[in-house]
Amino acid sequence: MKRFLDLADFSREQVLDLLALAQSLKDHPQPQALAGKILGLVFFNPSLRTLSSFQAGMARLGGSSFVISPGQGTWQLETRLKAVMNGAAAEHIREGIPVLASYCDALGVRAFAEGKNLEADLGESLFGMIDGLCDKPLVNLESAVNHPCQALADWRTLDELGVPRRGKFVLSWAYHPRPLPLAVPAATVHMAAMRGMEVVVLRPEGFALPERIMEKARRAAAESGGSVSETTDRASAMAGAQVLYAKEWGTTDYYGDVEADARLRASLGEWCVRERWFAGAAADAKLMHCLPVRRNVAIADEALDGPRAVVRREAYNRMVVQMAVLHRMLA
Amino acid sequence: MKRFLDLADFSREQVLDLLALAQSLKDHPQPQALAGKILGLVFFNPSLRTLSSFQAGMARLGGSSFVISPGQGTWQLETRLKAVMNGAAAEHIREGIPVLASYCDALGVRAFAEGKNLEADLGESLFGMIDGLCDKPLVNLESAVNHPCQALADWRTLDELGVPRRGKFVLSWAYHPRPLPLAVPAATVHMAAMRGMEVVVLRPEGFALPERIMEKARRAAAESGGSVSETTDRASAMAGAQVLYAKEWGTTDYYGDVEADARLRASLGEWCVRERWFAGAAADAKLMHCLPVRRNVAIADEALDGPRAVVRREAYNRMVVQMAVLHRMLA
Amino acid sequence: MKRFLDLADFSREQVLDLLALAQSLKDHPQPQALAGKILGLVFFNPSLRTLSSFQAGMARLGGSSFVISPGQGTWQLETRLKAVMNGAAAEHIREGIPVLASYCDALGVRAFAEGKNLEADLGESLFGMIDGLCDKPLVNLESAVNHPCQALADWRTLDELGVPRRGKFVLSWAYHPRPLPLAVPAATVHMAAMRGMEVVVLRPEGFALPERIMEKARRAAAESGGSVSETTDRASAMAGAQVLYAKEWGTTDYYGDVEADARLRASLGEWCVRERWFAGAAADAKLMHCLPVRRNVAIADEALDGPRAVVRREAYNRMVVQMAVLHRMLA
Repeated sequence: MKRFLDLADFSREQVLDLLALAQSLKDHPQPQALAGKILGLVFFNPSLRTLSSFQAGMARLGGSSFVISPGQGTWQLETRLKAVMNGAAAEHIREGIPVLASYCDALGVRAFAEGKNLEADLGESLFGMIDGLCDKPLVNLESAVNHPCQALADWRTLDELGVPRRGKFVLSWAYHPRPLPLAVPAATVHMAAMRGMEVVVLRPEGFALPERIMEKARRAAAESGGSVSETTDRASAMAGAQVLYAKEWGTTDYYGDVEADARLRASLGEWCVRERWFAGAAADAKLMHCLPVRRNVAIADEALDGPRAVVRREAYNRMVVQMAVLHRMLA
Repeated sequence: MKRFLDLADFSREQVLDLLALAQSLKDHPQPQALAGKILGLVFFNPSLRTLSSFQAGMARLGGSSFVISPGQGTWQLETRLKAVMNGAAAEHIREGIPVLASYCDALGVRAFAEGKNLEADLGESLFGMIDGLCDKPLVNLESAVNHPCQALADWRTLDELGVPRRGKFVLSWAYHPRPLPLAVPAATVHMAAMRGMEVVVLRPEGFALPERIMEKARRAAAESGGSVSETTDRASAMAGAQVLYAKEWGTTDYYGDVEADARLRASLGEWCVRERWFAGAAADAKLMHCLPVRRNVAIADEALDGPRAVVRREAYNRMVVQMAVLHRMLA
Repeated sequence: MKRFLDLADFSREQVLDLLALAQSLKDHPQPQALAGKILGLVFFNPSLRTLSSFQAGMARLGGSSFVISPGQGTWQLETRLKAVMNGAAAEHIREGIPVLASYCDALGVRAFAEGKNLEADLGESLFGMIDGLCDKPLVNLESAVNHPCQALADWRTLDELGVPRRGKFVLSWAYHPRPLPLAVPAATVHMAAMRGMEVVVLRPEGFALPERIMEKARRAAAESGGSVSETTDRASAMAGAQVLYAKEWGTTDYYGDVEADARLRASLGEWCVRERWFAGAAADAKLMHCLPVRRNVAIADEALDGPRAVVRREAYNRMVVQMAVLHRMLA
């Protein structure tokens, strides 16, 4: 495997194979599998789980890693083609990425959406450029509209919890003080559809997922036997749901317009997940979130601290599945 | 060993055992003892010795480590229970700590005192919460009123230097431009008392160590055969002293009141340790400090650069004793 | 080898030996040569290549490393002797460097020029102090007027490319929005002279390399059979050149005077390397730069993206030659 950029690049069988490898590495550790291998990690944006779980995962396989955070101890990196670089950035990714790739055996890069132009972000223009500059195996640590490591970890979590392949999976918008990127909702709706689930996107007016994201999820559902729909009605969405996956994101009707976004979300403070949201759900319905989560803003303490919440397990599974990805790339 | 949070959690014999293990690992290195083991290091506050000596120590035992510094490359972490998280912090330690613990075999955490409410800090309310959230072995890398790694390293240093168990140990307040936490003075007075020494706390009016800290040290002294007293009189304190341990801390009479602290310390600039402080001390009296130290503010060049100063040895011993702690936890 | 501070500390034969070792380690990896060894890396200034290539190089030899960046997660470090430390710095390098050295088997330190006093910078007063404080093998990761790792990597690159030992090597000033240090131009002119090349320094009025740097290069040339000259005339410099090595630096006529520097460089924007600069050069003349480089400011896209540019190879060779340095010091 040379690239792990998007779950959609793999067949359902390939994903199941990766998940089986993850389980196998958990049952039968291979502490020397990646001895002498080096993972470079580049973070254009903050991280807690990704930063620590990739380093820990490499170490558990006998390898090592280094971390570069442009602008923090290293130069700011320019990403625009043809830029006249007389500003803050001292180096261009056209040099930075190939140089870092040359030092390691695989590179992981995190580069969030710019959040200004929806088409540019949907087109993954920045990550596409990084892809083209890296001649080593490359892992997407979260790009403009994708987060395949999170999606794979969540798939594993659903399997571990025994959530039926055909179960009802509700991806719900949740409140946040500011707009956040579409990467996790886009990756999540596609993952659940690819798994074969009955996926419902629950979100307020103004926050519908872009058609390109929905269409991709519907194609995955068509192949897997699942379905994808959307609604603004919480009661109908949650009726019989096995999973509520909460996630915050910015307005898509006025993408990149911070003021319009603020006006829209001003009245949406009650989109903070509480136990009562689960009134019509399956008795043992689960609450998922990729973290980080703002307590009592996106999800109330009562829900995060209750028995439905499986967020820590999702986070732990990040390391478990990423070890499979690294093993497939480098072993 | 599942916890290394406070030297007071161990008997004198257990401490001596740890120190013996430290010496044994120095004499007979075990470069594979922790092969495959991972230490997670979380720094809510800056560090030089702790950051580097724990990484180096793990490596010398064959293990590896990762570092997380909330707010620097990763999210700011909320610590208040029931907080409505609409401010700067994107994640709560109720998620962050268990998630990080799940990636590693042991976790080390540094979280300084908040410095506002003395009772809250003395109660170690934050570190107590972290303790409850971590299901892996946990090391205190400096908490509100404790620094057990420093205390253990200093104990070893005293032993190495041949300072008698019953020797006179003066913990002296030293000048600093701003109030600093009580962690090191609290850990130091207790350590020296537990070692069995004649401990004298020398400090100006307004900077007496809190009764709870003094009482804990007196209990340790009662068991070890040592003693603990306090004074504002430098000459009597230093008379016959084998050790002067200098440390800066904030006013305890007006804890958390920065302005009152500034008024109090305005006239205390001469509490900068100089060679003449040792006039009545033992001829070979030693000068200790945990570092970092402000030269010519807390301690004068003449003293730090003179033969009495053993601050580099103390710092080196941080790594030596921490390797014993890690070995006991993980080998 | 206990020190790698300046290529001038080594004979030509010793440098060739190091380069041979680098090639040998590339052809015949020694993944356990430095097992159990620890490299401490201290960065007073930002880094991308040095930070990642040293970590990767140590790992490729079986060792490990830790990184300290004063002021970022650790204390600011004071460097002035006899300072009364009541400002931002909490610790002095007189403590910090020996302590860090005590944790590791070799130390690497980056400390750029202060850029105020030319004589102080030429005298390497800061790095000299660091040298004196470190009782472990020490690597210069770029000091006030030296960058031996870059010089060694560039020598290897010239060899790999088959650039004749007697070839014409032009070190040219290039535009940058602000003055940059003399470390790379000083190291480069010396390296090319020591290799035996016909070295021409091409630079505008006001930016002549200091006599002390030129004299050192001329001495190296005298021994190796090369030559060193300088000019402001691009056409004569580039005539028949095998290599154009572009580099930005500040005015030396008004060293440390930011305003004078700004006035001087205001009219020098056309010192941005373009393909037409090579009109009179050898047909296969190469374009070198140590990176980071500002595209379309110091070097135009057309040149950096063209077949002459070997900047990525230079950067990759940083790791290759540094592994030889580490191996020589620690294996």
